[in-house]
Amino acid sequence: MDTSTPPSVPQKLLAELLGTFVLVFVGCGAAVTTGADVVATGLAFGIAIVIMAYSFGRVSGGHFNPAVSLGAALAGRLSWRETGLYAAAQTVGALIGGLVLALTVLASDVGWEFGDPLGSNGFGEGGQVEVGGALLIEIVLTFIFLLVILAVTDERNRAVAAQAPLAIGLALAAIHFVGINATGTSVNPARSIGVAFFSGSDAIQDLWLFIVAPLVGAAIAGAVYPLTFGRDKDPVPGSGLNFGAGGSSDPAFTQQWNQQAYGQQAYGQQVQQVQQVQQQSVPQAQPIIQDGWQWDPASQQWIPAQQQPAAPATPDQGGWAPPASDQTQVRPPQ
Amino acid sequence: MDTSTPPSVPQKLLAELLGTFVLVFVGCGAAVTTGADVVATGLAFGIAIVIMAYSFGRVSGGHFNPAVSLGAALAGRLSWRETGLYAAAQTVGALIGGLVLALTVLASDVGWEFGDPLGSNGFGEGGQVEVGGALLIEIVLTFIFLLVILAVTDERNRAVAAQAPLAIGLALAAIHFVGINATGTSVNPARSIGVAFFSGSDAIQDLWLFIVAPLVGAAIAGAVYPLTFGRDKDPVPGSGLNFGAGGSSDPAFTQQWNQQAYGQQAYGQQVQQVQQVQQQSVPQAQPIIQDGWQWDPASQQWIPAQQQPAAPATPDQGGWAPPASDQTQVRPPQ
Amino acid sequence: MDTSTPPSVPQKLLAELLGTFVLVFVGCGAAVTTGADVVATGLAFGIAIVIMAYSFGRVSGGHFNPAVSLGAALAGRLSWRETGLYAAAQTVGALIGGLVLALTVLASDVGWEFGDPLGSNGFGEGGQVEVGGALLIEIVLTFIFLLVILAVTDERNRAVAAQAPLAIGLALAAIHFVGINATGTSVNPARSIGVAFFSGSDAIQDLWLFIVAPLVGAAIAGAVYPLTFGRDKDPVPGSGLNFGAGGSSDPAFTQQWNQQAYGQQAYGQQVQQVQQVQQQSVPQAQPIIQDGWQWDPASQQWIPAQQQPAAPATPDQGGWAPPASDQTQVRPPQ
Amino acid sequence: MDTSTPPSVPQKLLAELLGTFVLVFVGCGAAVTTGADVVATGLAFGIAIVIMAYSFGRVSGGHFNPAVSLGAALAGRLSWRETGLYAAAQTVGALIGGLVLALTVLASDVGWEFGDPLGSNGFGEGGQVEVGGALLIEIVLTFIFLLVILAVTDERNRAVAAQAPLAIGLALAAIHFVGINATGTSVNPARSIGVAFFSGSDAIQDLWLFIVAPLVGAAIAGAVYPLTFGRDKDPVPGSGLNFGAGGSSDPAFTQQWNQQAYGQQAYGQQVQQVQQVQQQSVPQAQPIIQDGWQWDPASQQWIPAQQQPAAPATPDQGGWAPPASDQTQVRPPQ
Repeated sequence: MDTSTPPSVPQKLLAELLGTFVLVFVGCGAAVTTGADVVATGLAFGIAIVIMAYSFGRVSGGHFNPAVSLGAALAGRLSWRETGLYAAAQTVGALIGGLVLALTVLASDVGWEFGDPLGSNGFGEGGQVEVGGALLIEIVLTFIFLLVILAVTDERNRAVAAQAPLAIGLALAAIHFVGINATGTSVNPARSIGVAFFSGSDAIQDLWLFIVAPLVGAAIAGAVYPLTFGRDKDPVPGSGLNFGAGGSSDPAFTQQWNQQAYGQQAYGQQVQQVQQVQQQSVPQAQPIIQDGWQWDPASQQWIPAQQQPAAPATPDQGGWAPPASDQTQVRPPQ
Repeated sequence: MDTSTPPSVPQKLLAELLGTFVLVFVGCGAAVTTGADVVATGLAFGIAIVIMAYSFGRVSGGHFNPAVSLGAALAGRLSWRETGLYAAAQTVGALIGGLVLALTVLASDVGWEFGDPLGSNGFGEGGQVEVGGALLIEIVLTFIFLLVILAVTDERNRAVAAQAPLAIGLALAAIHFVGINATGTSVNPARSIGVAFFSGSDAIQDLWLFIVAPLVGAAIAGAVYPLTFGRDKDPVPGSGLNFGAGGSSDPAFTQQWNQQAYGQQAYGQQVQQVQQVQQQSVPQAQPIIQDGWQWDPASQQWIPAQQQPAAPATPDQGGWAPPASDQTQVRPPQ
Repeated sequence: MDTSTPPSVPQKLLAELLGTFVLVFVGCGAAVTTGADVVATGLAFGIAIVIMAYSFGRVSGGHFNPAVSLGAALAGRLSWRETGLYAAAQTVGALIGGLVLALTVLASDVGWEFGDPLGSNGFGEGGQVEVGGALLIEIVLTFIFLLVILAVTDERNRAVAAQAPLAIGLALAAIHFVGINATGTSVNPARSIGVAFFSGSDAIQDLWLFIVAPLVGAAIAGAVYPLTFGRDKDPVPGSGLNFGAGGSSDPAFTQQWNQQAYGQQAYGQQVQQVQQVQQQSVPQAQPIIQDGWQWDPASQQWIPAQQQPAAPATPDQGGWAPPASDQTQVRPPQ
Repeated sequence: MDTSTPPSVPQKLLAELLGTFVLVFVGCGAAVTTGADVVATGLAFGIAIVIMAYSFGRVSGGHFNPAVSLGAALAGRLSWRETGLYAAAQTVGALIGGLVLALTVLASDVGWEFGDPLGSNGFGEGGQVEVGGALLIEIVLTFIFLLVILAVTDERNRAVAAQAPLAIGLALAAIHFVGINATGTSVNPARSIGVAFFSGSDAIQDLWLFIVAPLVGAAIAGAVYPLTFGRDKDPVPGSGLNFGAGGSSDPAFTQQWNQQAYGQQAYGQQVQQVQQVQQQSVPQAQPIIQDGWQWDPASQQWIPAQQQPAAPATPDQGGWAPPASDQTQVRPPQ
């Protein structure tokens, strides 16, 4: 058991898969069982993100949405290689969510059959608004969603990092209050794909819009946010407009999309405080030297005075670039 | 008055009893008085968990649900012996909740009689979905509920520990938005038992499903979560698949289900930080002794070697009152 | 301008008055304009407490309800003298809230006249339930409300102190989801008094129940909580069953009802951290010296006077009794 | 990339513009698509503030409302010069929000035409209440809104600073629950202006009230709050009743309306802790003296040894980016 191991790639992809599964099963499930009641359905989608981001933000950053991953990549917070893997995991999770929901409704014997709407998105024949309105509303709502995500997970906003998952989920709820009676609200290609294939031909014909529009809205936000409000730190290698590089070759994805902003930041900060204090308090400068020997407080032994004491070892704790998990918390200087 | 006393077993069981009482009275009460309005009833159940987890998470860990205790046991966070006691206290609390609710409605003279539905769960004749759908939806929703609980109370997720009760309660609300119009939503055997016996024969006949399905869903999550995402620490003795051992014989239940994760963790962490700092600052062990003099790091001077250096006095800081389960974190310098 | 001045008694009473004014205007206002829509009205009452507790918890402790003040007094957290003053301020605030609401509705020219219900509570002729049910539901719901308040503001629960106002307000929302279609939900004598006199004879005739039942429910919780879960600290002088003493004569109310628990506690804790660290780092002044010996508070023994005492002195921070306001934050060692 | 750069004036104005845009698009959008469903619309407006305040509170303070900026100015927290710029940016953002919403609805082909109500406010012919009630309700609700804002962002309330955006947004939601069925709820001149010009003559004729009443309510709160509850710190130059001075000439707006209270305060406080500790721990006592010269770590130069070193060096810690008004907290040991 090693609590200090950072999340592995499979764990990250599993987190994205599970989160998107929950989003589709809970959100579209509420849409189906409540007849798309605006408040219940909107809150169900929003809460799904709140709870999954609190659960798995630590692991994967908690995107659960290819548009979010795209926006994060353009904003320099996720490499393009990881963006592709994330989008794949999200789509698989959404399809499982749609399938399990379809089976559940089918087994409930309430009259639903494959091909009936299952919380799907639509426009024109298959929805309540025409294509122009659908495009505009999905682009604008996804732009707003990404704006919130990029801002509340900005490291300069770390004082509210523990509230970021709540804010992001509430954003999705409000976005649904606006869009449910229009397109059903997508802002998430995976969510639309996840139920379209169980919801009949209208949903499949309309699917393109709920892939394109969210990606466009997210891309605008991902490009505009760092241009206007600046960056919290240097872009992740292989992100942004560096399409060539292809992302970190580190199997652990060193640094995706301010991952630790979902809660880990406030913590990292506190740890840092302590270290700062440690460095200040440990009286480095004045070594205790006696008779040619020097006390090394780090190794708790006497060493020859001319030898460099092993000492407080902060450099060893490297980047401190807030580690994915908490490994360093109790690491005493050996 | 000693604020540092950890909660006693009776206090833990009383907390579980009271919490489940509130869950049934408030949740089923809202279902009764609002005619099972989806939003009001879902929020009532969810908020009941939010407020009880914030109130009693410190004391008992805040399960209020035998399925949650089962999932925690399988995940290695609660001993089987405690699981049994918890489930008993939860069931008693739920039955009191059902009884008090029944008496209240009866005394209100609104036409309700013993045997009429009282926020009970059902399927087939007694509900809106058939048995297959009921099984699937209860299993999946309980799986999701436990996934959230295990993830947000994972010690590696301590940065959001203060938000864990909120996330767990919101999860229950969203779960209700999906399930109210299907089975009435159980995901909690105690909650179903609590009102079934006041709700007539349909509720009693259907009760088995709302015991079995939540336990199955919770067991899957309890087994899968540590397998896929790893453990935050070693399993509690007598938990997981160690059925034989039978749990801690310590009457104070040393370590149930990341109990302190409900809020106490952030605190414990701060305490630990301070202690860490103290330990760093004052190199306790191995005094530096030279020629009959000893270096006193506190006063930064040499003192006669035979004198006890005044030093770090962590025991004296008892006033700090690290609550209950923080003791395991409060690792004093040996 | 002195930010360290603790709130004065008039400020405390003004805070209680304003908070109860807002509770009545917003809660009963939503009841009037939405036709007592359960979700909107319940959330309006709940949010009123959330926002007023976040606003004025720092100042007065944020009761806004004589039943809450009674429960706090019985639980040993508020002196009886202060309880009386608080109840008076709350009632005045509620009456102003009722009056301003009545004038607003009157000036709106929507058909409402003095004597028509204005979000008032009722039973029998004036409500939807009979007297027995009304008594039971108000007692039980107020008991639950106080249980939450006493538990989340318990100092041993300080890790979630910043979430306490949210939990308390959400509790009131859920309580309304249960009670709106029964009695309209009081659990607060001031709120019922505030609108009864503008709401006609039924409301006035029923008023006794909404004074008695909340006080009974609150008293039970106030007595039971410390008996079963213990105390976080010694009772406030003049509180609990010490009716004689009559409360603190200190015009600043030294210690009412864990006042700082509404947010100040987490802060207080941090202050202590700093202080602790400071005291560690900075050897304190004025040693106790007798006959050439000096008391070393850290090692709890006498040491030769010429020797520098080791310091840490945590015992000096005694009370821990988290200061009402922030005065100690930056108190540098003189 | 320099994370410590304070937000520039254009960034502040852009933040105010974007936040008000989102408020109008999401809030009025939900009103339009849900037929002004009270719960959905109220939550949409409230959540819009929650998410924008969490996103941009760090940048601009997060007003998104000229009445809020006016109240902040009167309370001494924003200079009049900045108040004017903020109000202009907010109005532009609201107009863009109204325009984009109008275009979206138009392109949706659902029967809406320019001049039909678009979530506009009204009274008399254009609303559900007469002018007297409209005036009263808007004044009182804005007074309550500002009271909450001023109280939860009061620096003495810093322990709950991370919850301030949540409390403020929830306040707006509850305010809408009261006012939607009366005036549609403004409490924000920019929001009313933003949609009035797309909503026909009634909305334009009624617009004056939704400019005047919110400003009156906000002005009362802005004047009363510091008078009754005192100030957390000295007024910002050019704010309050100092109309002449005209505000900071510093292009970075040194000090607007407790800007960092939206989250940065808890952070600032932690920074302060560390700084305090550093200052305490850094062994100031032993100056580095050489040949009659002494190294001054604050000014990074040698000074005559008998001269008092400039000491605590807060400026050097600039990297830590202690935001705006935290300086007042960083009271160095004299």
